[in-house]
Formats: sequence, C-alpha cells, structure tokens
Amino acid sequence: MRISQYLLSTQKETPANAEVISHQLMLRAGMIRRNAAGLYSWLPSGLRVLRKVEAIVREEMEKAGAVEILMPMVQPGDLWVESGRWDKFGPELLRFVDRNNRDFVLGPTHEEVITDLVRKEISSYKQLPLTLYQIQTKFRDEVRPRFGVMRAREFLMKDGYSFHLDQQTMDDTYQAMFQAYSNILARLGLEFRPVLADTGSIGGSMSHEFHVLAQSGEDLLAYSTGSDYAANIEKAEAPLPTTERAAATQELSLVDTPNAKTIEELVEQFGLAIEKTVKTLIVRGDTEEAPLVALMVRGDHELNETKADKIPGVLSPLEFATEEEIRAAIGAGPGSLGPIGLNMQVYVDHAVAVMSDFGAGANQDGKHHFGINWERDVALPQAFDIRNVIEGEATPDGKGTYAFARGIEVGHIFQLGTRYSEAMNATVLDENGKAQTLLMGCYGVGVSRIVAAAIEQNHDDRGIIWPDAIAPFKVGILPMNMHKSHRVTDIAEKLYQDLNDAGIEVMFDDRKERPGVMFADMELVGIPHTIVIGDRNIDSGVFEYKNRRTGEKQDVPMDQIVEFIKNAVC
Amino acid sequence: MRISQYLLSTQKETPANAEVISHQLMLRAGMIRRNAAGLYSWLPSGLRVLRKVEAIVREEMEKAGAVEILMPMVQPGDLWVESGRWDKFGPELLRFVDRNNRDFVLGPTHEEVITDLVRKEISSYKQLPLTLYQIQTKFRDEVRPRFGVMRAREFLMKDGYSFHLDQQTMDDTYQAMFQAYSNILARLGLEFRPVLADTGSIGGSMSHEFHVLAQSGEDLLAYSTGSDYAANIEKAEAPLPTTERAAATQELSLVDTPNAKTIEELVEQFGLAIEKTVKTLIVRGDTEEAPLVALMVRGDHELNETKADKIPGVLSPLEFATEEEIRAAIGAGPGSLGPIGLNMQVYVDHAVAVMSDFGAGANQDGKHHFGINWERDVALPQAFDIRNVIEGEATPDGKGTYAFARGIEVGHIFQLGTRYSEAMNATVLDENGKAQTLLMGCYGVGVSRIVAAAIEQNHDDRGIIWPDAIAPFKVGILPMNMHKSHRVTDIAEKLYQDLNDAGIEVMFDDRKERPGVMFADMELVGIPHTIVIGDRNIDSGVFEYKNRRTGEKQDVPMDQIVEFIKNAVC
Repeated sequence: MRISQYLLSTQKETPANAEVISHQLMLRAGMIRRNAAGLYSWLPSGLRVLRKVEAIVREEMEKAGAVEILMPMVQPGDLWVESGRWDKFGPELLRFVDRNNRDFVLGPTHEEVITDLVRKEISSYKQLPLTLYQIQTKFRDEVRPRFGVMRAREFLMKDGYSFHLDQQTMDDTYQAMFQAYSNILARLGLEFRPVLADTGSIGGSMSHEFHVLAQSGEDLLAYSTGSDYAANIEKAEAPLPTTERAAATQELSLVDTPNAKTIEELVEQFGLAIEKTVKTLIVRGDTEEAPLVALMVRGDHELNETKADKIPGVLSPLEFATEEEIRAAIGAGPGSLGPIGLNMQVYVDHAVAVMSDFGAGANQDGKHHFGINWERDVALPQAFDIRNVIEGEATPDGKGTYAFARGIEVGHIFQLGTRYSEAMNATVLDENGKAQTLLMGCYGVGVSRIVAAAIEQNHDDRGIIWPDAIAPFKVGILPMNMHKSHRVTDIAEKLYQDLNDAGIEVMFDDRKERPGVMFADMELVGIPHTIVIGDRNIDSGVFEYKNRRTGEKQDVPMDQIVEFIKNAVC
Repeated sequence: MRISQYLLSTQKETPANAEVISHQLMLRAGMIRRNAAGLYSWLPSGLRVLRKVEAIVREEMEKAGAVEILMPMVQPGDLWVESGRWDKFGPELLRFVDRNNRDFVLGPTHEEVITDLVRKEISSYKQLPLTLYQIQTKFRDEVRPRFGVMRAREFLMKDGYSFHLDQQTMDDTYQAMFQAYSNILARLGLEFRPVLADTGSIGGSMSHEFHVLAQSGEDLLAYSTGSDYAANIEKAEAPLPTTERAAATQELSLVDTPNAKTIEELVEQFGLAIEKTVKTLIVRGDTEEAPLVALMVRGDHELNETKADKIPGVLSPLEFATEEEIRAAIGAGPGSLGPIGLNMQVYVDHAVAVMSDFGAGANQDGKHHFGINWERDVALPQAFDIRNVIEGEATPDGKGTYAFARGIEVGHIFQLGTRYSEAMNATVLDENGKAQTLLMGCYGVGVSRIVAAAIEQNHDDRGIIWPDAIAPFKVGILPMNMHKSHRVTDIAEKLYQDLNDAGIEVMFDDRKERPGVMFADMELVGIPHTIVIGDRNIDSGVFEYKNRRTGEKQDVPMDQIVEFIKNAVC
C-alpha cells in the first residue's frame, strides 16, 4: 500500500476523552473514528487488524468442527418474550418497533435466534452434536460506553452455540472450544489466561473466561502458583478456615466509639487487630417479608458481590440498602452495625464464623460491642463463601497459593444446560423416538475488543507494537528524501515491488514528508519491521532494518533483504 | 465437508409464501431460513455463496484502488437531519431512540456517515481523489418485504464513495467503478447488462445500474440493437417525432360515448386508430394554487412515471389524483378526460404534440371529442418526453432500434455532485488554499441480492445450477451404498482426501441415504461437478463424472480423476 493513496489519519496529540491507552492509540494511529457515543467507524488500518483477528477466529472454529452461519442483527421481540429475557434484560437491550408496530431488538447476543433455528431444523439425535457459529455485529446500549471499541455499543463478536443430547458430547465440545480459544489467542501472539468464571445473566453451569493479560485490565484474576487453577476474582473460591473457633476469653462490652465510623478508624482508635473486627453490609432481600438482609465479612476482607448475589433470600442482581433504609430498619447508621440485636436475616462469611473475641457495631450510633463471641452472645448465623480471596492464601485445590493478575476478557465459554432449550421447547427425538430437551453450550469471542486488548498489552510511549499475526502491514518502507533522490526512488520502488511479489504486506511511505514524521507514523501505527532507504545506505550497499518490538537495528545487504524479511516475519 | 457433520437442511416441498424461484430454491436447498418478515438467517451453504460473492467484490474494489473501511450500522439521526433526508426519507428509514432518548437510524445507506467522516479527515486537495468502501449490513424497513433475500429488510451491501475536487477525476473514478462492476459480474459467471439509470432519491447527475439478466427480473431494460446504448425503461429516451404535425382534415365533433370508459373500448366501438387517441392522466401538483396537473400520452403509449415526476409543477414522488378529486375538479370521471376546456395546467408527450384529427374525452361523462386539432381547437401545451419507449422504435443515438430484456438490479453507480457535501459543508482546501465543496460519487452492490439473482438466472426444475465461482462446494462425492461396501468407503474416503489436498472444496455425502436422495440433494444444492462411486465403477476402474450445467456424463479413469477435476473446475 502506498500511503499517498491511502487514508492514514495519524495525529500527534493525545485525544481528549480517551481514557485508556488503546483508545488513545487507536485514535492517534487512525484506526478508528467516533461517530457517536459507543459507535465507531473502522478506518483502513484498523479494519485490516480487525479482519485478521476475524480470519484467525474463523480458521480455529472450522478446525474445531464448528459450522459458520449468519443470523440477522435485528431480532423479533417475541423470541425474547419466549425465553423470558424480554423482561429480565435491562435497557442494554435496545428495543424498537418496525413500521407495523411489531417489537424488535438489536441483538446483543443470539441465544434466542439460534435456539429457534435449531428447534426447527434439527429433529433427530442423528444430527447431533452440532456446533454453529457466526461472526456478526452486535449492539448493547451500554449505560456508559467507554474505552473506545473496548466497551462500544456496536461491536463485532464471534458467537458459537453447540447442541447435544448427552453430557459427554457437551463436555467434549466444551473442551474443543477451550482448546480453540487457546489456539486463537496463541496465534494472535497475545499473553492470555483462561479462568473459571461466573455464568452471570446468560445462565448455565460451567464457564470459563479467556483474558488477555494487561495491567490496565478491568478484571482481577486469581491464579494458583502451584497448579492450573485460575478464576476470575468474582468466582475464585476462598479456602475454608483451617482452624476451629477459639474459646471466648473476653467479656462482651459496649463501648462508646463516637469517632469510629469505619473499620480503619475503629482499629486505629482502639488498638484492635483488624482480623478481630467484622464489617456488616445491608443488602436488599428478594421478598417483601424480608426486604433487607445483613452480610458480614471480616474487617480485613472484602465482600464478593457475585458470590453474595447467589445467597438464598438476597435480591439478584445485588443491591445495597441506602443509609436511609438502614436507619429506618435498624435505628443506626451503616458505620455502627453488628450482629447483636440485629432484627433481620444475617449471613456470615466462613472466616467470620470461626472468629472469637471480636468487635463490631452495636446497632446504636457511636457504639460498638467488643469481645463478641458467637453462641455465647448471639446465635451463629449460616456461613457462606462471600468474600474475595486475597493474594498468598491457599487455593482450593491445596496445591499452591493465590497470585493476582489483571486481564481483559476477550472470550467466554458456557455450558448453558437447558436454560434456553427448555424455555423455548427445543427438543429432538432420541434413539428411542422420545422427545428430549437439548443441552446447549455457547461460546463468545469479542473480535473487536481483542484489537483493543492487543494494544493494551503491546505498546510503548511511541505507539502500538503489533504482534506480526495481526499487524495491519508487516513491513514499512521509509525512503529518505525520496523526492530529491532518483536513486532512492528507484530502489524503494523496486523493494516495494519485490516484497509485494513475495506476498508480504507493505506500507510504503511515498509521501513528501520529513524523515521525523515518517518514523513517528510507522512507530505509532506499530508496523513490526521497517526498512530505511537513504543515499547513505545505497552508497554502502545495505538497508537499515529495525524491529519495532526489540528496537534492534541491523544492516542488511540489499540483495538479501527479501529473504531476510521473509525470515523475520512470523 | 462431510454432510454428516454439516447442517444440510434440504426439503422436497416447495415452500408456501415463496413466490419467486430463487426464494423457493434457497429455502429448499437449505441456504436461508426466515426469522421474521424480511429477516433471514444464512445457513452454511448459503453463507458460503454469500462470502464468495463478497470476496470477489472486495478483490475488484481493491484492484480499482478503493480502500476498505467499516462504518457502524447504527447511525446518529442528527446527520440525517443535516443532509435533509431525516424528513425526506419515508418509513423505510427505521428510526429509534437509545436509552438516553437520542435519535438513531438503522443505516439503509451511508452517505451521511461517510460525508461526516471525510469532512473531518480530509483537509487538502493533496489527499484526493479518494475512494472508500465497506461491505456492511443494511436495513430498510420495506413496506412489503418479499422474494426472500431479493428484497429483504436486513441485507448485505458493498457501498463505496469517492471524493474529488474536479470533474476529471470524478469521471475517471466513475469509469473505474463501471469497469470494476463489469469485472465482478463477469467473474461471478453471470450474464449482465449495465444500463443508464435514473438517480432517484439518492440524487445526483450521472448514473448506471448493473442488471443480472433474468426472465423474472422486476426491471425492464431497453437496449439498442445497433449500439451500446442501454437504459432502464424508466430512463430510456424516446425518439423525437420525425414528422411534422399534419394539417387538420376533420371537423371537431362532440360524440356520445356512453359505453367507452377506456381507450380500448373507444377504439373498438368507434373504429378509431389507437394512434389517433389521447389518454389524459391527472396527477398532483406541488403547489396549493395548482393542486392538479394533466398529463397526456398517445393511446398506444404508456406514461413513464419517472420522467413525469421531473416535470416542473408536478409533485415528486408522483401521485395520481383519486377519482373523487378528478370529479370535484373537472366534473367528469377519469374515462372522459381530454384537452378541450380542461381547467388546469396540461403537459403532453412529444408524440401527442404532433397529432392531428385525434379523439379524446370531452370532460363530460359519456362524451368524447373526435377530430381534435391543436391550435385550431385548443392551445398546444408544452411537450416533454413522458412516455415509455416501445420495442422496435429508434434509439436516441440513431444507431439501432430498441429491444427489451428483463433484469435484476444488483449494482448502481452515481455521480452525486455536491448533493451531500454542500448540505453537510464538506470542503477541502484547493491548491490556492481556498475551501472548495467536494464532488462525490457513490457505488453500491447488493451482495446478498446477487446470490438470489444468480439463482434466478441459473436453475432448472431440479434445483440451482451454480457458476463455479460462487458454488458453495465445487465437487460432490456420491458413494453408492457406502455403508454396505468397504471398497466404496475406502475409495470415497481417499478421493475426498485427495481433492481436499488439491485445495478443492468438496461436499462428501457420507450419509446412510438412498442414492435417489443423494442425487436429488446434490442437484438441488447445485454442486457443479459430481463424482459417483459404486461397486460397479470400481470394477471397471472408472468414476462416473457428471456436469450439473450441461448434464453431460463421462467415465474418468480413477487415477486421472484429480487432474480431470482440476481442469473441469473454473
């Protein structure tokens, strides 16, 4: 490609309103442009990267035996009513009526459409197992679209769906998809980690997320230092306490604590060990009879909202009570709550259940109880795992300790069970001619998000550093003062031709620009391999090669350059 | 591909509600499934064809120097307000509000978005000319979606846009696109014809449509038997009359014609030559002062609504007055209208202007005037070309006569001039540093529609006959009674492997089906080349090859089959 005939819209300035580095660099390198909140156009260089990701995803899906189809982006609302998600899905589901006043949605996902398709097309166990997938534009009306294509409203996804009558083929396909996702991310040249994940609003039993590792990642991943165990912090299992509850040694006392509104203040002002304190959080219940529920974690622990959300009686998705509601119900503010005399259902974390001689609010403003002991002072509530794990503690398999990393979720695989097939009556006849409800798996890759995640992981202060596999162009040719030197022009044109003939994608900077501008653009756009051609080089019979990632420079004899590049390009 | 692991949803029965053959065959061959009115899912075989069309379109666009981008399907409404199309576009433009109550549309086309993009990205004449294109899903809320993907609501289009400061590069790019479109359709293996076209609601000056020729085509094309001149009937220019108006020979008479409500009845009952009659049509005007306008064509001619639409004072788009409105204004019904005493603006076709001694309604029910002569009996109105051409008359270049063909429009190229750039203030600096309004061209290909058009042109009563270039699979392997004969199994498997290794796409029917079912499916799906393998063939050392299009069968020695197929596949 000749830049003179291309749309290379680079810019020096860091754009306002672009908070993360990938968003900034995609704008600066001319990969994307914003059309409206969460809506982007992909400019030529950006689209080239997107299509490369798409091609690798497609190849690995085909290798794994999945068959490609294409479902419409506009979906009939009645299918969503049938699955029950018309009501459950929030305003992220963009709904509209057509000219005949019929309900439609812009598909954020296609479980309903595929289940409808398969229940009509598949009638016999002989046609199973079957894995279908598509690469299609999705829409999610995000409350706060941000980070460019990382959390856009319109985005490109690969979504796959598998259908089974038995758990064995379900497990096999899930494993094949796990492998395919690992292959995809490895081929893209990205550092990644698959982790156990919560199934969230999609539903189902088993689930893994695939994360591109990056400091800026929104997700916290907890992995074992001694085994393959890894989970999203939302899902990471806390180890059960290994010690029994110690016997009481202190009397219960009611203490004036007028200036201790937080655990930190309490610990500081009264010299308590933070492990000897309990935090009480009030969340909404899911019935009118029990509108509020109290959850308790140790002072040094954090409530895990995803885990708490699943406790019976707790409203899902989790909502915290307001200070007004807490005062009305308990007569004290959120900083003075504790187990003794609390007039509602209480659940505690496993770590809280083994505490003794601990401090907590007294359910009166400005007062705490110290020396609390379960059973002696107040009944021991039911215990659950409702806290985040912490670095250094044991992983549930007992084979290591937790370490943390940050990641960007780019893939998610689920075993859905019969969540959709049952609601939508998707059955096929088994070997005995009996109708059986289908088991389903679903498998998503955020194709456009991968582009941003790749940049979060691969950049420096000069711009993007593309892995070869998804670079918009593999090689950049930078002729110095081409328009003043015929020798440079001739040799640059010949090299451009030779590399094209060798099937290598080249970005040829044939503009009348200063060398500084040309170097800066190549580095900003992230071309992995660059070749400088100047009169000086021609005199010495070598090209100057530079590797974007390592920064290494090397002189390469002119007659060996094509072979050299062929070997350099992965 | 092994059918056993594929989703091959063929059906014998002609589906109800599928009016045209391509729709019927796409359903029967398992290419598409309907999700809702005008919304389709592409099943595996259909999608393979669609992707092949897409790939050829993309290659020819790149060859023509166009650069690919991708704009969002969801577009901000304010851009449509800015271009003036928010009000002008009818309910085909699907509008909705997002969660923040902002106006958006589902893009039926992207002139607004691209003009907005280019006015922000392009600032200098040095960056021009520039041609950008995308292959993107579109939505048009058709009042009556029909014919399957031929007139769907959600469809796939290639839309390209070029930008210029001078008419010369505009013409060059237009010519390059004309050539690219011709290349695309030739490579797809389709018979096609480019024709001059009306620019319609998109606006602009110069325009050509590209039609796939098919008996079932919705468009009538008029082409010259003696030159390259060809135009959509909407646009085809009628020859000017070559004779002067003859002198009057008859007296004007008022005749009772109580049973002649149509030209045909008048001609039959009164022995008039139809060329001596005039039809009067009343359409709406575009002002309150002139709410109705009369248009007159010769009795044997047809009004051309596209041409009539452009006459000054006529409402655009054209609307016919109702019988009630006509009676209220004239005091007679639509069957008794004529020029004498007509109390409104009248325009006539050129052919009417040279008539003499003709008959027409007298603007009284049940009465006609015979022997009418212009100027003697009534003033001659202004004349325009407002009729359809007819077969056999001269083409405007004088080099031949008109012949007709039917076509399906699959491509349309336009010179838009400054229609959008002016409304949206898209300017760049010229060589003198002065802001100049951009000239634009736009270039559309109906990618999904091509698939249906190809079938309309290529089918027989057994199914689809794919041109090799877009066949879902090039070769079908039909092993006879494979599950009873190990020899057949082994040889079929080896052939499948050999053809795959040769890079040829194969549909391998490894099902336990009767030969009749297998043959019928291959022919229905339209695989161009099939190879039958049975015990009989193995005994004689030859495969039975059959060509889907010619029906020709040929015995091919087993060791020569791969070479034979390589040569047979285009």
